[in-house]
Amino acid sequence: MSKKNEYVTEITNIEDDFAKWYTDIVLKAELADYSDTKGCIVIRPYGYKIWENIKNCIDKELKIIGIENTSFPLLIPESLLQKEKEHVEGFAPEVALVTEAGGKKLAEKLCIRPTSETIFMSMYSKWLKSWRDLPFLYNQWCNVLRWEKETRPFLRSREFLWQEGHTIHETEKEARELTLRILDIYAEVIENNLAMPVIKGKKTEIEKFSGAQETYTVESLMYDGRALQSGTSHYFGQNFTKPFDVKFQNRNSEDEYAYQTSWGTSTRLIGGIIMSHGDNRGLKLPPKIAPIQIIIVPISMKSDKVIEKCQEIYDKLSNQFRVKIDLRDQYSAGYKFNDWEMRGVPIRIELGLRDIENNQLTIVRRDTFEKFNLKMDELLKIGDILNKIQDNMYNTCLEHNMKKTSTVTTLNEFQEKINKNQGYIKAMWCGNSECENKIREITGAKSRCIPFDQEKISDICVCCGKKAKEMVIWGRQY
Amino acid sequence: MSKKNEYVTEITNIEDDFAKWYTDIVLKAELADYSDTKGCIVIRPYGYKIWENIKNCIDKELKIIGIENTSFPLLIPESLLQKEKEHVEGFAPEVALVTEAGGKKLAEKLCIRPTSETIFMSMYSKWLKSWRDLPFLYNQWCNVLRWEKETRPFLRSREFLWQEGHTIHETEKEARELTLRILDIYAEVIENNLAMPVIKGKKTEIEKFSGAQETYTVESLMYDGRALQSGTSHYFGQNFTKPFDVKFQNRNSEDEYAYQTSWGTSTRLIGGIIMSHGDNRGLKLPPKIAPIQIIIVPISMKSDKVIEKCQEIYDKLSNQFRVKIDLRDQYSAGYKFNDWEMRGVPIRIELGLRDIENNQLTIVRRDTFEKFNLKMDELLKIGDILNKIQDNMYNTCLEHNMKKTSTVTTLNEFQEKINKNQGYIKAMWCGNSECENKIREITGAKSRCIPFDQEKISDICVCCGKKAKEMVIWGRQY
Repeated sequence: MSKKNEYVTEITNIEDDFAKWYTDIVLKAELADYSDTKGCIVIRPYGYKIWENIKNCIDKELKIIGIENTSFPLLIPESLLQKEKEHVEGFAPEVALVTEAGGKKLAEKLCIRPTSETIFMSMYSKWLKSWRDLPFLYNQWCNVLRWEKETRPFLRSREFLWQEGHTIHETEKEARELTLRILDIYAEVIENNLAMPVIKGKKTEIEKFSGAQETYTVESLMYDGRALQSGTSHYFGQNFTKPFDVKFQNRNSEDEYAYQTSWGTSTRLIGGIIMSHGDNRGLKLPPKIAPIQIIIVPISMKSDKVIEKCQEIYDKLSNQFRVKIDLRDQYSAGYKFNDWEMRGVPIRIELGLRDIENNQLTIVRRDTFEKFNLKMDELLKIGDILNKIQDNMYNTCLEHNMKKTSTVTTLNEFQEKINKNQGYIKAMWCGNSECENKIREITGAKSRCIPFDQEKISDICVCCGKKAKEMVIWGRQY
Repeated sequence: MSKKNEYVTEITNIEDDFAKWYTDIVLKAELADYSDTKGCIVIRPYGYKIWENIKNCIDKELKIIGIENTSFPLLIPESLLQKEKEHVEGFAPEVALVTEAGGKKLAEKLCIRPTSETIFMSMYSKWLKSWRDLPFLYNQWCNVLRWEKETRPFLRSREFLWQEGHTIHETEKEARELTLRILDIYAEVIENNLAMPVIKGKKTEIEKFSGAQETYTVESLMYDGRALQSGTSHYFGQNFTKPFDVKFQNRNSEDEYAYQTSWGTSTRLIGGIIMSHGDNRGLKLPPKIAPIQIIIVPISMKSDKVIEKCQEIYDKLSNQFRVKIDLRDQYSAGYKFNDWEMRGVPIRIELGLRDIENNQLTIVRRDTFEKFNLKMDELLKIGDILNKIQDNMYNTCLEHNMKKTSTVTTLNEFQEKINKNQGYIKAMWCGNSECENKIREITGAKSRCIPFDQEKISDICVCCGKKAKEMVIWGRQY
C-alpha cells in the first residue's frame, strides 16, 4: 500500500504537499467550497457550525466585559475612507467599489468595508458629547471584503466573516487597558477552545495596522511551521478621533479627543484549526468547538437490536453532548469510520451485537486512535474523555511548536534554521526597520511580534550587530 | 400642558403624525441612526439586542426541524443573477453593482446580493448527485442590499439584515410541506415572542415573489392601520432548478430536477414591533424580546441603603431575567422613569426608603401603567407579571386589529372604510389581476393575501361583480 493511500484515498499526504492537503480537507470534509464569485467561498454547514461555536465563545467573553453588538453599513463613502491618511494608503488598493446602483451611476463611489474604523468614528463623533457618555464599547459580527490577488479558503478570501470591535475611551490608560484585555480574551479562547497555543506580543512599526499607534497580536504556529496571525488588537490613541472630530467635554469642561481601540478575529481561525491539528486521516477537531463531538456507528445496520441500542445511547448523551448516529445504509461501517475520522469528530462509538452482549460500547479517540471499551453504566465518563482529548490536542500542538522554535544569534544560522525547519525563530533586534526588511529579504521571514515574554539571547541585533533592543519572534507566514 | 408635551417632550404625538412618531422613537430610543451612507442605517446596541433576541427565537425553531446555517458570497456575478427571467426582472432595478476592485475595472460586474436564490442554486447544482443527498436544508443570516428610492429605518432600508432559507427536495409534496412548515414557524415566533397577531395566507399572482410558483405570507397590522408583510415563504417548483440544472438521480435511476423553496424574515420586524405596540410614551417592548425586561430605579441616589437594596434585588433577579439598575447620578428619578418608559422596558421597579421600611418594592407595568407593591419575599412573582404583560400586549394588538378590520361587498364601501379607518378590508375576489389592479388604483390598497381562514362574504367579486373565487384581505402597506 502506497503512503498516499494509507488512510483516505482522496487526501494528499500531509508531508508531501501541505497546501494541497489543506485544500483537500477543506473540500472533502465539506467545510467550504469555491463559489461562482472568484476568490470568495461558500462556508458549508459543517464549517459554519465551527464558526458558530467559535463565535459563541468570543461573543460570550466580550459581553461579560460589557461589549455590545451593533450593525454598521456595509458601504462606506469613498471620501470617508480617505479621511485618515495612513489608513487609506493601507486599504485603498484592496477595496471593492460600488459605482452603479438602482440603474444609475452613483455621484460618489461607495467602498465595500475592508474594515470599519472610519464609519464607526464618524458615528461616534455624532453621538459623543460628554465624558459621561464614555466608553463606547461596540462590536459587530459581519462580512468584509479585501480584494486579495491570491486567495485560499479561510486563510485569505476576498470576503470573510469576522468580528470587529471599535471602542472609544475617556483616557489613554483606559483605552490601552482595553486593548490588552481583548488580547487576553483572544488568547484564552484560542488556547482553551481551539486548543491552539498562542504567543502574545506587539507588532513592529512595519507590521502594525494602517493608522494604529500600536498593534498587538496573538500568533499561532501551523503544523508545517508557518505562522498564522490569529487575532489582533489595536491602540489608536487620537489618530482617528482627531480627523473624525470625536471629542467630548471632559471632567474639567474642556474639549478633548477620545482614545480609540479596535480589534478583530475572523473565519481564518477555521484555517488555523485545520492546519494546527489535522493529520493524514483528515481534520481533527478540538471537542469544545467540534460540531459533532461523538459519532455513533452501528456495526450492523441489519440488526434492530443494534440500532435500538444506538438510539438509547444517543438519547442518554444528547442532552450534554453534540452527538449524532450514522444510519446511512448505503455505506459499510468501515467507510463510516474513515469518513468521520476525516471530518475530525473527536470520539467514535462503535456498537455491535457483541458489545450489547457484554453490556459495553467501543470507544475510539480521534486524537490518539486509542480503542477501548466502556461499560454501559459508565457512559457519562465520555465527558472526561472529551476533556482529555481537548488537553491532549493542546499539549501536542505546544510540543510541536517547541520543536519548531529555534534561537539564533546570526543571520546565517537564521537562514539555515528557517530553511530546514520553518517554525518560529527567536532573535535579537535593534529596533530598526531596515534590519527587519533585510531579514525578510534574505530569509523570507517577517517579524511575528515582539513577545511579551522576553528572553535575552544576546546583546546585539541578529542583522546589523548593533545594540539589540528586544527579542523578536520571526517566521514565514500565512 | 399641550397634548404634545404630555409625556416625553421630544416625541411627536402618535395621533398627529404617525410617521414622525415612528422616526422619533427609532432615534430617541437609540434603536438606530442614519449613517453617512445614504439610505443605510446603523443599528445601535439597543436595537441590535432586539434583533439578537428575534434571531435566537427563529434560529432555534429552524434548527429543531433540521435547518443548517451556511454563509454564501455577498457578491453574485451579473450573468448568474440573469439566469431566471422573472427573477432578474424583479430584482435588477434595485441592484447595487461592484464594477471596480483592487484598483482595476472588473471584466464582469458583480451584484451585491438582493437575495440569494441564484447563487444557492448554482452551488446546489454542483453538490447534488442522488436522491440520497436530499433534502438540502440551508439558511443564512446575512445582509442584503436593495436600492430603494425612498427609505425608512428598519422598514425599507437599502441594506438590511435577514435570514434567507433555501431548500431543495426530492418531491413536490415534501417541498410544499416545508414551505408551509416555515410559515407556521414564522407565525408562531411573531405571535408568541413579538406579541404581534398575524394572518397567514397566500399571495396573489401580482404580489408573489419574482420567480416563485407560490408565495405565502404572514401579515401584521400596525397601530395606524397599515399592513406589514412580516415574513414570506416561497414554493418554486422547478422554476430555478431547471435553468440552474439542479438535478439528481431519483429512486428509479432517472434524472429529475429538484423541488425548491426559499423563505425569509428581516430586521423590518423591529419596525413591526415599534408600530404594533408603541404609544405616546414611546416604545413598548414584549418581555420575550426586550433587551431589558426589568429596570430598577433607586428613588434616592444619595441613600447607600437604597442603592444596596437595589443591588440585592438585582442579584436575585439577574439569573432569571434581563435586568438593569439605573445608577446615573446626573438624572432625577422622574427623568429615569420617563426615559425607560420611552425605551419600552416592560417592568420598572422603584425603590425608596419607605419601600425598604415596608419590606416591599414598587412595580410599574409599561403596558397598563398599573402601579402596585410587591413584598420582597414575593420577588420572583415578577416572572408571572412579565408573562401577563406578554399576553396582554398580544391581546391588545389583536383587539385593535379586529377594530380595524372591515368586511365589504362593494367598491364604494371599500373606499369609504379604508379612507376612514385604514386597516384590513375583507372582500371577495374573482381571481383576476385586472380587478386587483383596479382596486389598487381606486383605493390605494393592495391585496395582502388570500387567507387560509376563508369566509364567504358574498358570491361576487367586490370589483367586477362576476363570480367570486375567494376572499382576499386588502390593505395599504408599509
